[in-house]
Amino acid sequence: MSTLNTDLSCIHAPFKLPNTVSLVAGSAEGKTPLNAFDNALLKAGIGNLNLIRISSIMPPKAEIIPLPKIPMGSLVPTAYGYIISDVKGETIAAAISVAVPKDKELCGLIMEYEGKCGKKEAEETVREMAKIGFEERGWELDRIVSIATEHTVEKIGCAFAAAALWYK
Amino acid sequence: MSTLNTDLSCIHAPFKLPNTVSLVAGSAEGKTPLNAFDNALLKAGIGNLNLIRISSIMPPKAEIIPLPKIPMGSLVPTAYGYIISDVKGETIAAAISVAVPKDKELCGLIMEYEGKCGKKEAEETVREMAKIGFEERGWELDRIVSIATEHTVEKIGCAFAAAALWYK
Amino acid sequence: MSTLNTDLSCIHAPFKLPNTVSLVAGSAEGKTPLNAFDNALLKAGIGNLNLIRISSIMPPKAEIIPLPKIPMGSLVPTAYGYIISDVKGETIAAAISVAVPKDKELCGLIMEYEGKCGKKEAEETVREMAKIGFEERGWELDRIVSIATEHTVEKIGCAFAAAALWYK
Repeated sequence: MSTLNTDLSCIHAPFKLPNTVSLVAGSAEGKTPLNAFDNALLKAGIGNLNLIRISSIMPPKAEIIPLPKIPMGSLVPTAYGYIISDVKGETIAAAISVAVPKDKELCGLIMEYEGKCGKKEAEETVREMAKIGFEERGWELDRIVSIATEHTVEKIGCAFAAAALWYK
Repeated sequence: MSTLNTDLSCIHAPFKLPNTVSLVAGSAEGKTPLNAFDNALLKAGIGNLNLIRISSIMPPKAEIIPLPKIPMGSLVPTAYGYIISDVKGETIAAAISVAVPKDKELCGLIMEYEGKCGKKEAEETVREMAKIGFEERGWELDRIVSIATEHTVEKIGCAFAAAALWYK
Repeated sequence: MSTLNTDLSCIHAPFKLPNTVSLVAGSAEGKTPLNAFDNALLKAGIGNLNLIRISSIMPPKAEIIPLPKIPMGSLVPTAYGYIISDVKGETIAAAISVAVPKDKELCGLIMEYEGKCGKKEAEETVREMAKIGFEERGWELDRIVSIATEHTVEKIGCAFAAAALWYK
């Protein structure tokens, strides 16, 4: 009976396995470093959520989907990379990749990267990192999905990229 | 039926939205940096809990209340700022603010700050940050609640301020 | 009735208290800093999980056990220390300790340490830190359990030690 099963899953795995992954990215200026971070999150579409930072696995069979509507203030397990700079004229970037396995019983691997570079370099780097992670595991790769953002700093800027896990 | 509803909330939002926020702060010395941090948490009243660091939203309609009695070892979603210093005579401070919206359907915004400064400066800074965050959102502010702590370092000191989310 | 009780625990403490603690450690090289970290986690046996970093309490009556089989991608509350270095020939180490109380109503204290040192020094340091933490609380110590790992860097290396909380 489904009611009972749900109860048991609450007991034995209270943190239910997320089954969706959404890649988002955004860059922004802010009046303070934390406000720049907050604004970058707003740009990325996850500014009114409570991100819980995770190291960095896509659960088996999770679906990669556009960011769903998540209630404000929700506790959202999220892998992310970000960089904040106050060096006027500096270009900063953040990127996220997800390596998806051929074998659907296996998990995916999320990698994050941030640096003083452009979007293209950040995205290539983070895709390479995900590829390496699969090679280290000896797993066959189906594909790599990625997102990146760059920003040229005016006063205080932040570049932010994330993979948010959620439930459908 | 309430049993069924609860089950469904476990399925679709396994991380139930916290509905209380408690501001705490504390400073302390310690024999090592991590022991100073541990002691500052004890001073703040949340030393025997497992803080899960979050980025930094008060769920809509959450109540700001004194820290409730939370069982030891509980996993407590918490926004916090802290600073550790081993420079004898240095004054360090940490502060937390919560911007509460007029529109009760919206979430609140938690900001944290830490620096080599006094309590007053830290608290003014963190309140300003929360105000800016609301301006960026174009939201009307009801009020800002805040807390701060300062410490003058003897050997190794830590100043810590937090907003702990919980449930009632 | 147990179904009802479970429901209530979901409502009032959505983050169910973990009741097991498992100490793991591992070191590895990697082609990038984050790949070295990922490889160290794989060596430690927790590379395909989503670690949620916590500050650092063993819930009362939790059992210290070998790492159980945890489904890939699970959200695992974990205290950890790590160090990444790209200085060829440098020795790095990470260590974790758990101070277990005599009074079984009290919680245990987890401490983490990482540094440019050997395994023995890291482990002695982190055990001392746990002992100090109990002295600060005025609690009687039953015993301290610990684990450590060291690594001499070739190109990019990571040493990682963790206490993973879980459920049985």
